[in-house]
Formats: sequence, C-alpha cells, structure tokens
Amino acid sequence: MVTVCSGGTGTPKLLAGLTDVFDPADMTVVGNTGDDAFVGGALVSPDCDTVLYERAGRLDRETWWGQAGDTFETDDAAVELAEALDDALSATEPPPDTAARPGGYLPPERQTAGPRLARWRRFDGVGGPLSIGDRDRAVHLVRTALLDAGHSLTSATRALARAYDLTVDLVPMSDDPVATLIHTPEMDRPLHFQEYWVGHRGDVEIDGVEFRGSATAAPGAAVPDALGEPVVIGPANPVTSIGPLTAIDGIRRALQDTPVVAVSPFVGREAFSGPAADLLAATGHEPSTAGVADCLPFVDGFVIDDDEPATLDRPTVRTDLRIDAAADASRIARACRDCLAGVGATEVAA
Amino acid sequence: MVTVCSGGTGTPKLLAGLTDVFDPADMTVVGNTGDDAFVGGALVSPDCDTVLYERAGRLDRETWWGQAGDTFETDDAAVELAEALDDALSATEPPPDTAARPGGYLPPERQTAGPRLARWRRFDGVGGPLSIGDRDRAVHLVRTALLDAGHSLTSATRALARAYDLTVDLVPMSDDPVATLIHTPEMDRPLHFQEYWVGHRGDVEIDGVEFRGSATAAPGAAVPDALGEPVVIGPANPVTSIGPLTAIDGIRRALQDTPVVAVSPFVGREAFSGPAADLLAATGHEPSTAGVADCLPFVDGFVIDDDEPATLDRPTVRTDLRIDAAADASRIARACRDCLAGVGATEVAA
Repeated sequence: MVTVCSGGTGTPKLLAGLTDVFDPADMTVVGNTGDDAFVGGALVSPDCDTVLYERAGRLDRETWWGQAGDTFETDDAAVELAEALDDALSATEPPPDTAARPGGYLPPERQTAGPRLARWRRFDGVGGPLSIGDRDRAVHLVRTALLDAGHSLTSATRALARAYDLTVDLVPMSDDPVATLIHTPEMDRPLHFQEYWVGHRGDVEIDGVEFRGSATAAPGAAVPDALGEPVVIGPANPVTSIGPLTAIDGIRRALQDTPVVAVSPFVGREAFSGPAADLLAATGHEPSTAGVADCLPFVDGFVIDDDEPATLDRPTVRTDLRIDAAADASRIARACRDCLAGVGATEVAA
Repeated sequence: MVTVCSGGTGTPKLLAGLTDVFDPADMTVVGNTGDDAFVGGALVSPDCDTVLYERAGRLDRETWWGQAGDTFETDDAAVELAEALDDALSATEPPPDTAARPGGYLPPERQTAGPRLARWRRFDGVGGPLSIGDRDRAVHLVRTALLDAGHSLTSATRALARAYDLTVDLVPMSDDPVATLIHTPEMDRPLHFQEYWVGHRGDVEIDGVEFRGSATAAPGAAVPDALGEPVVIGPANPVTSIGPLTAIDGIRRALQDTPVVAVSPFVGREAFSGPAADLLAATGHEPSTAGVADCLPFVDGFVIDDDEPATLDRPTVRTDLRIDAAADASRIARACRDCLAGVGATEVAA
C-alpha cells in the first residue's frame, strides 16, 4: 500500500509512473482541496479533477486542467453576455440598488452566505479566473448534486472516480472547507488562490498565505487510514499544494508518523512549474530544494535531480527529474520506491 | 401604455402581434415566476426566459423554450455521468452515509437551505425535468451572478433584457420566491410545477395547487406602476400562469382596479396547449372559456374564438384564436385593442 499526496500538476504528471511501480489497486491519492472553488453554484475541485481526468484518460494534457476536446459554449456565452450587460447596467433606469457587476469572487460579506463547503471560495459563474468546459462543468454539477443529496466530499469524489473506472482510490484531503488565500499589500482583501494564480498569473506581491478553515477542518474520512501507509509527495508546490494538507492538525501529525518521500519541484533555484519559488520566498523559505526540505520537515527522504547542487540533511535518491515522456515518470517513480525503502518503508513495491 | 401578463407559451406567441398593435416602447411584460427553478445553483426563469428569447429573436420556436440552435454538452454529459454513478454508488465501500442518488428536486428538508429566492424550487443540476442548453445556461448563470452581486430579480431581468436589446420592458411578477406546487394523492410531497408538467407530462391526479410563498411575497418593484396601465392577458393557463400573480395580494388588487382583457386559451372544451383543462378541473372550474372567466373574475372583457359556443357575462370580441403565423398574432392583438376600448380603456392604440 502507498499513498500519494497531490496538487494539480507535478504529482498528476508523476502518476502514470507511480502506477507502473506500485499497484494502483493498493494506492490512495489524497488531493489538495485548498484551491477548490464554488463557481456559479457548483464545486470545482481542480486538483482532484486533474487526477480524476488524468487517470480516466480524459485530461487535456496541453493545459493539465479540464477535459481533452471539451467545448466552452456556456463560458463563452456568459462572457459575451456579461460584456453586453456592462452597457445595459449603466443604462438601467431606475439604477439598480448597487452598481455591482458580475464577474468573479463574491464580496467578503457574501463568502459565508452559501453552503458550508463554499466558504471563502464563492465565485459567480461569469468571467471568473477559471474557464470551465461544458463537459467539465457536468462533473462539477454531478459532484454538487451528490453533496446536495447528502454525500460527503469523500463519498462524492470516490463515486466520481468509480464512475470513471479509476483503479486508484481518489479522496480529498478534507470534507470541510479550507480556502487558500493569498494576502497581498496590493489589495484590501486576500485573493483566493485561483484569483492569485489564474487571474493574476501570480504577478502580485505576497505578504502571507492563509489556509482559512484549516484550524477547524478535520482530515477527510479516508485520510487517517491512507496516511497510515508510506507516502509519496510528487514534485508539488510545498506552500499551496501541500501546505493546505499540513495546515490540518491531524494530517500534519499523521505525516510525521509515517515514512514520507518527496520529489523536489526544483533544480537549483529553478522550479519545474507554477508559483513555488515566489510562494516559498514569501513564506520565509529559500526558493530551492533546500527551502522545500525546510518547508516540509516531516519528509524523511527526497528524490532530487542529478544536477541538483544542494545537499540535504536527509537521505536522497538522485535521478533526472524532467518529465517529458511516460518513461521519465516511471524512472522517477522507481526513485521514489528506492527512496522509501531507504527511509525504512518496507513492502511498498508492486 | 399597456401591460401584458405572461406565462410561458400562449402569451409569448401573441407578443409579435401585440408589439405590432401597441408601441413596444410603451409596453411592460410582467412574467410569471411561479415556475422558476434553481437548477444546479442557477436560477432558471422559464416564462421570463421565453419572453426574453422570443423578443431577442433567439427562441427555439419548435419547443417554445430555450435558444434556437443551442447545444446540450453539459446536460448530456451530466446525465451520462449520473448513469455511470448509479453503479458506482452501489459499489462504494464503505457505503455512503445515505444512499441518495442525484437527480432532480431536492428533498423537502433541503428546500429552504439555499438562497432565499431558491425556496421550494431547488433542483440539483443532474437529470431533473428541465433540459438546459449550454448557451441558455449562460443566461441563468449571469442572472444568478447579478443576484449574487446584490441586484433584485427585477433589476437582473431588466439588465438581461437590455443586454439582448429588447424594446419592451420585461419584469418579473415578484422579487420574492413564489413556488407553484401541485398536490397529488400519488406522492407524499407536492410536485414542483416543473416536475408535474415537464417531468410527469401532467399525468398525475391533482388535488390542489399551491403558490408557496405568495402570502408574504410583494409585487415586483416595477409591477405596481405597470398594473396602473390597461392590461392584456394572452391565451394563458389561468391556474398556473396567471394564478401565481393573482395569489399576491397587491397584484390581485391592482388587476381589479385597472381595465383587463384576456384571450381565452380554450375553444369549447379544447385548450390550445398545456395543462389548463386538468388544472381548471382540479381547482373547481369548468375546463372551458366560461371556467377561465370564472377563474379570473377581475377580467373586464374577453377575446374569444369565432367558434366559441359559450356566451359570457362580460364584453367579448370574437376572432379566430389559432396562431399559425405572424398575421394571426396581429389579428388577435387588434381584437385585444378593440376589447380594451370596449371596456373603457382609452389611448391604448399605437
């Protein structure tokens, strides 16, 4: 048995290799839900969705989000209509009570007015940071329908995974709302992660990262058992892909108590993808493999690049960390297995 | 100035004629919202939508709902996924807390858990009675975004109408939730109108019609002024298209105080479309023009068919009520104008 903690890009790219090296029937993937967003009333769970679509062979592998070959009829029509509305609202007589235009994150006073899971992650369905394809939207509507029918997010996520014939067990980190918020001196309110990363392309000054809700959130229903097994963390952004997990007490403690290996998302100062460097720097860590190790003290061993200049105070296994083809993912997955064996996890091989 | 009270089929079919005979710039259309439904978190307003699309030249005139040439990618994918889920949910281990499947009207205890406007009209976004096209859905998302931004339903509806360049003023009957519920001995809960009519094709025994919320609902922001003008009611179902309006005290009183003419939706015992006959019978009225007159006591004059066998106790104007072409709608609209003049409304002609 092995458990994989996943964000939305690096770890999903490694999954094809991990399922080569470990038996997928004995693998649980715990997805970060700090990036989740309620968009137009439906719960989008980007990291779990990417794992779901990747494993189901439906992922758009150009973008690493959404479904391959999806259409965007609703999104396009909503944006077009919102543009026409801008003029219309200006001309409305009598003028509306508020001059508010639709488009994106709801104002702070509305963030807690929706369903509990939507807290601090409520976007309207028009022109927000996330583009939602038409078939992608169906998944969000079905997930939300399952929640409305009384299922936990764990139960809803597992049902979707089974409907898509996944062999791995995919579960969310928590059944409670945790919202990753980026504090910036440029705005009078924190940005939701999706606004920060997709909306602003990460181009804002950061003076803090908050996982709102994490103090009272419990690990997801399937997480305690999953974290009793050896854990692999892919080349994930440690701040906003793994940070939401470790912000939950029960998850942080479980990770301290089980063998954990992580693939560095850096070679030297260069991150493979995403905002890891800025986020590490903003949270007081060096933007490097050493900074990642500093940020994730519970990790027992690291898989680092052949060209990595740093040496760490923990066991390492070196390989080429670039993932261009399936064989790359398999090679890195074997390095993870070797690293786990090196830190005392036994019987993890397929 | 003239005001038109509209349901979802008969009156919209007459609008092309009414805007020939009356100046559309001086016309307000008050749409029934008793059929409205929150579907997957977005407010669908079927009667206002049909007027909106008809006036914008976007209506699917085969079905008289939805946009012409729309696609159904999300709806189709959601239904397909829900079918795959049925097996998946049965196989989920451990079994979910509840065995609830998504699909349609939420259980009674969840009906009041959403936004205020969603009360007693909450459907999940999967396999409910309403098919929602992808571009149609964009309109619902924008409407809901406007509500989330603080607009009243009146303000949101007017903004959509302006964005679609409507010349008539389109407003909802109320900014408060009113839900048309059909009580049937066949079910242990009432059916939402959309379940009754679209879901069950009207094929259930009816022992009562309820307009839940109407006792506390106020007329929409624009309705009192609009109902100070002469009123035309098209060939509408008097029970569920006009009933929700008259269930609101302020609207019923306003209709009593202004000249009102109505086009009969019957010739003899034959309704032109929809469930008018069953609903009249179930509410103690004869399913006929005489029953409609009985049901709408505030109507001052009726436009009835050349072949109508009944005679009424109120002024009537006769014409052929069948609407097959634009000329038919114009002819009936002229009869409405003549009928209004006959009941004392002056200066209503274009």
